[in-house]
Amino acid sequence: MISQVKQRKNKEVTPNQKLLWDSPLLQPLRVITRLLSPSWLACIPLTALIVVLWHTAAAAQGVDSFEPPQSVEELTTVLDSIFLTIAAVLVIFMHVGFAMLEAGFSRQKNTVNILAKNILILSLGTIAYWAIGFAFMYGQGNPFIGLSGWFLSGGPETYGQDPYPASVPVSINFLFQVAFAATAATIVSGAVAERIRLGPFMIFTILLVGISYPITGHWGWAGDGWLATMGFSDFAGSTLVHSVGGWAALVGAAILGPREGKYREDGGSNAIPGHNMALATLGGLILWIGWFGFNPGSELAATANVPYIAVTTNLAAGAGAIAATLTSWGKDGKPDLSMIINGFLAGLVSITAPCAGVTYLGAIIIGAIGGFIVVLFVTFIERMKIDDPVGAISVHLVCGVWGTLSVAIFNPELAGLQQFGIQIVGIAAVGAFTVVLSAIFWSVIKAIIGIRVSVEEEIQGLDIGEHAMEAYSGFVKEADVLTGGKTASMSSRGGEFPRSSET
Amino acid sequence: MISQVKQRKNKEVTPNQKLLWDSPLLQPLRVITRLLSPSWLACIPLTALIVVLWHTAAAAQGVDSFEPPQSVEELTTVLDSIFLTIAAVLVIFMHVGFAMLEAGFSRQKNTVNILAKNILILSLGTIAYWAIGFAFMYGQGNPFIGLSGWFLSGGPETYGQDPYPASVPVSINFLFQVAFAATAATIVSGAVAERIRLGPFMIFTILLVGISYPITGHWGWAGDGWLATMGFSDFAGSTLVHSVGGWAALVGAAILGPREGKYREDGGSNAIPGHNMALATLGGLILWIGWFGFNPGSELAATANVPYIAVTTNLAAGAGAIAATLTSWGKDGKPDLSMIINGFLAGLVSITAPCAGVTYLGAIIIGAIGGFIVVLFVTFIERMKIDDPVGAISVHLVCGVWGTLSVAIFNPELAGLQQFGIQIVGIAAVGAFTVVLSAIFWSVIKAIIGIRVSVEEEIQGLDIGEHAMEAYSGFVKEADVLTGGKTASMSSRGGEFPRSSET
Amino acid sequence: MISQVKQRKNKEVTPNQKLLWDSPLLQPLRVITRLLSPSWLACIPLTALIVVLWHTAAAAQGVDSFEPPQSVEELTTVLDSIFLTIAAVLVIFMHVGFAMLEAGFSRQKNTVNILAKNILILSLGTIAYWAIGFAFMYGQGNPFIGLSGWFLSGGPETYGQDPYPASVPVSINFLFQVAFAATAATIVSGAVAERIRLGPFMIFTILLVGISYPITGHWGWAGDGWLATMGFSDFAGSTLVHSVGGWAALVGAAILGPREGKYREDGGSNAIPGHNMALATLGGLILWIGWFGFNPGSELAATANVPYIAVTTNLAAGAGAIAATLTSWGKDGKPDLSMIINGFLAGLVSITAPCAGVTYLGAIIIGAIGGFIVVLFVTFIERMKIDDPVGAISVHLVCGVWGTLSVAIFNPELAGLQQFGIQIVGIAAVGAFTVVLSAIFWSVIKAIIGIRVSVEEEIQGLDIGEHAMEAYSGFVKEADVLTGGKTASMSSRGGEFPRSSET
Repeated sequence: MISQVKQRKNKEVTPNQKLLWDSPLLQPLRVITRLLSPSWLACIPLTALIVVLWHTAAAAQGVDSFEPPQSVEELTTVLDSIFLTIAAVLVIFMHVGFAMLEAGFSRQKNTVNILAKNILILSLGTIAYWAIGFAFMYGQGNPFIGLSGWFLSGGPETYGQDPYPASVPVSINFLFQVAFAATAATIVSGAVAERIRLGPFMIFTILLVGISYPITGHWGWAGDGWLATMGFSDFAGSTLVHSVGGWAALVGAAILGPREGKYREDGGSNAIPGHNMALATLGGLILWIGWFGFNPGSELAATANVPYIAVTTNLAAGAGAIAATLTSWGKDGKPDLSMIINGFLAGLVSITAPCAGVTYLGAIIIGAIGGFIVVLFVTFIERMKIDDPVGAISVHLVCGVWGTLSVAIFNPELAGLQQFGIQIVGIAAVGAFTVVLSAIFWSVIKAIIGIRVSVEEEIQGLDIGEHAMEAYSGFVKEADVLTGGKTASMSSRGGEFPRSSET
Repeated sequence: MISQVKQRKNKEVTPNQKLLWDSPLLQPLRVITRLLSPSWLACIPLTALIVVLWHTAAAAQGVDSFEPPQSVEELTTVLDSIFLTIAAVLVIFMHVGFAMLEAGFSRQKNTVNILAKNILILSLGTIAYWAIGFAFMYGQGNPFIGLSGWFLSGGPETYGQDPYPASVPVSINFLFQVAFAATAATIVSGAVAERIRLGPFMIFTILLVGISYPITGHWGWAGDGWLATMGFSDFAGSTLVHSVGGWAALVGAAILGPREGKYREDGGSNAIPGHNMALATLGGLILWIGWFGFNPGSELAATANVPYIAVTTNLAAGAGAIAATLTSWGKDGKPDLSMIINGFLAGLVSITAPCAGVTYLGAIIIGAIGGFIVVLFVTFIERMKIDDPVGAISVHLVCGVWGTLSVAIFNPELAGLQQFGIQIVGIAAVGAFTVVLSAIFWSVIKAIIGIRVSVEEEIQGLDIGEHAMEAYSGFVKEADVLTGGKTASMSSRGGEFPRSSET
Repeated sequence: MISQVKQRKNKEVTPNQKLLWDSPLLQPLRVITRLLSPSWLACIPLTALIVVLWHTAAAAQGVDSFEPPQSVEELTTVLDSIFLTIAAVLVIFMHVGFAMLEAGFSRQKNTVNILAKNILILSLGTIAYWAIGFAFMYGQGNPFIGLSGWFLSGGPETYGQDPYPASVPVSINFLFQVAFAATAATIVSGAVAERIRLGPFMIFTILLVGISYPITGHWGWAGDGWLATMGFSDFAGSTLVHSVGGWAALVGAAILGPREGKYREDGGSNAIPGHNMALATLGGLILWIGWFGFNPGSELAATANVPYIAVTTNLAAGAGAIAATLTSWGKDGKPDLSMIINGFLAGLVSITAPCAGVTYLGAIIIGAIGGFIVVLFVTFIERMKIDDPVGAISVHLVCGVWGTLSVAIFNPELAGLQQFGIQIVGIAAVGAFTVVLSAIFWSVIKAIIGIRVSVEEEIQGLDIGEHAMEAYSGFVKEADVLTGGKTASMSSRGGEFPRSSET
């Protein structure tokens, strides 16, 4: 393996490849040939669908007109559009946060893989949700599923725009929702990090974002969804986004099994510290910022209520960080930074459902409880032999459930036993559906092409195994030193340019 | 110490702890018990206050209505709310910048501590300003202090909303201000980095953000504040935010003393380079971006003047960077990146007071002078035996003073000796009050629980001492090598999973 | 060289320099003297211009009034101003992305230099575009060049505001454009990284942003520009921004020559991996986010069409990433992360021209083709012996051309042979002008003061050579180890404070 890697690293253009123009011209053919190799055949159906349905999506909706708004109504529509675009951008920014958080919490030998995975989640998620997800979620259909408007081809009448002002364009409705959709897959990514193969995970992403997430989303957020009709209250998605991602993550981590070396034969477990806490903190704080699009944007229109939601969101995040700090301090003697980060994320996930309808103090309590339980559950999940490198299950599933329940406790207008029951029904229904569907997805993918890298690749790191490159070229890592001085990998690249002796 | 650390690193779940459900269920009790240990008793009064005053804050102000605005006035209110929310998010984003800047400018062995500190500043600052700070600053009271509206419990009539349009909700007023408030403590954080204990600094943060900053803020920004009445002009806070943080930083750094090894016995000083200039640059540039919320948002309403303020802000930043580059180049022979970063930050701090009322050329000159003096003062402060690892005092205090004075020089409508005198009165009064109160805060905390880590902990790094973890696991650091090959810490964790021999 | 560096690192304040107040007071004089050294004389003309024209710019345009808007028209103007300010901030945020991307893709020994360079591009670009660039681009003049409104001194009548609503202030017009302008120079920066001297590059930046970019920009975007009149369609600047930067980069990289060690004597080339893929990914994703200001903001007014543009932009980015992943996977056997990043950037550059007028499916195809060709061209450019460390030429020039052409293929309203011809004329004219002018700029600078660092400095790294500092103090780099154990640089600084034996 090492020698292969070395060979790749030193890939050279030999003199007899010098017919410069020839090579690039022939390249496309060669590429196409190689793309027909088995592991990517799975992409063909989707591509075919896209081509076949070209005509459906052919009507451009963009206009270049400059007619200024003539009335308060028209201007309101414009303001709604601008606000929701900005909110969507903040939610898309969260993907930057997720990528940095997950990378920082993992080992450096898997960094490239994690970064690539997160870029592709956003990319594939965008395309999959555009092609089918949005239609399943917001297309006209029945209380269980939407069934029209594939490829974002319909107008406002195609999509139940109930929660949105009728006047805003479908494009903003889609933009805000697509930013949310890919989030669910990103949550899974963290829990299965450091041992999952890239290709299979991408297939799972397409299935989760394109099929599973939109269906349960339809239940709770489409105008005629059965949970919405029942009175289930999940303002910005503690259940419909975060616990969906959390359930899929739990199933994935369980089926995949723990990382090599995480659990010992005597039943104990080893701590596997993340490689870059600055990166993890950056990612976590970007998520905090992005949540100001996630929660206030879920107002789905520009209103004077938007800042109120931003305030409850911020208070819950702060309370979550403080509670997790104190809990970690009390539990382990010193405050663990990864717990502090997971603490404010826990506060944010918890306040996602109730953010629009609770008092400031309620928000603080909800966030603090989130920060408290996340610390306990990180330990608990670990002891359950579920290996979740970044704590995604504790943050998104556990606090997603808590946040959804908190609506029935802290929202003065909704609090009560009946609402509590409705919330439980919603949590259970969404959870059961997601668990079953995820289990099917994971199992089928595992059976057909496998989902886990080899032990050798895992120990060497997925960066080399999946991508033939490393994240931090030029730095000396402990693995280099432990394997005995100047290693093979060190001699084959370098902070300095390659010496002639290596040719 | 090392062996303790090693022990913690390898913390294991032994087989006889396997009663899985039991442990988490008992956990809360154990946590609560440990939380009652002395060092956290200081948090109890605040918590008690929160609980006691629950009823005050119980009225939810959020509404879920979807009634679209019916008039230009109503729509204007909505636009003001949206704009100020976005501006507030940009200011909160500055905390991400501060965290990365301070971490990058410090040594890697203190990175975890700095990151944790910055997250907690934002978190505790948010809660403290919500509980009491906002009432001291904007509550109805007298020209020296606000005294109503604790726990953000009042309506618009409770808070002097003079500078804000009367129609915008209190929540946005609060959101924008809370983002500012925590900034002051963050400035202090940089100056006392690498040797302050986490707990005591958090107590200082609560006192500064909850009491000191709001009182001087009331003087200058509340409708009836005595400095505002006198004509003191500080549009976005060169004095009221930046120099307040700078004064508290100066006092803190002086009382705390320099880092171990900073000054030699012969009277000279050693340069202690930061560990990650990419992180520092990222942080600095995020601050630049965030300033577009800080300054234009201080317009406190959506107006066509907002882009003008953004332009002066940007010009001053650019001029500050150029001036600092040239000064550093001329002074030391080569341009120092940390000076370039501090240069544009100096330009930004300088333009904060005058941004709304000076010409473009005025903004450039103000920023350039800021960039020039910051380079000189970094050296000067260092020679005064004040050890400020990130240059916070030079950037925020010195340029904050300069920016406040520049209003009386470059603002065509205000320039003049009389205004210059008023500006000096404001600078002096705010400075004196902050210095005295900070000195009291620091001294009391020092006397009761101490503020500085032990020499051993400082040399080993605060990451291990305060948090029992390290920031860059898996990388070889010079400290490892200098202490003799494969160190204890290196053998106990690793890029690879722990080997069985370590069990 | 090493000993000099060591000396600088340990710069000390000797006891006889202890007259504290004296030194800083004398400093300015010394600084001014040194600034008159030859290499900075080039800055004098610009400075002189600024001072001479002070009076032109003296009229402050800022107002502090709080009169709320009275009509839909007035409120629309305010909303336009706010939206464009936010869009401009997002575009300025792209500079953070460029800095991180370029740094991450380069070697660690050049990191400080790259970061400094990128900060100064934004800073000098801002000042240069304010002083002369904006007048050349949008001032009243003729179809080839604008010739009025120097130093942003004119009112709306001075600048052809055709594309903007007449009512928005000039300041927002400028703010959005200045953010774009500096982008062109940043693109060049990546292609010439790791061997260009700081000073000469800064002079080139002033010339490109102040003169070359604005002139071709005038052709295509000013109301009376000859390309605009002809019907050339480049909505957000695939040609006018990205390929302009790409052409200047191509010329610069060709004149400068490849990095030491990039090409071997046998005609082959060595891969020189970037030092920090997390930083590069962060930078790339920040660019993705910033593009939501770049493209939707080019609507130049707040309209309900803004989210449509955001959607096409996002779809193209996702498609570009996927296409580049598949192409890289097929071509090299494993997906290269740097190709995935360049893939979504390619999609974004490609969609920049057509974003407002193509269907969703069209956007996906345009982005996918961008992601496909960028992978091929990175290899092709490398074989042409053009050394482009970050792939800037392939991303910005090649995909800029492709995006511009795609308008005539995929925009239902414009598609056709005639438009295709117009697009080619625009691409060719802008390309020819930029190539010629860039070649003159680079050649003149090279002839007078030289543009490339010495071989010794390049091997040692520009961080030491240009800035006398390093980016990652405290970490062990491979270069340290390969040159034999504990190196000179390691013993002279340290994670620990300097020991007395070093004094």
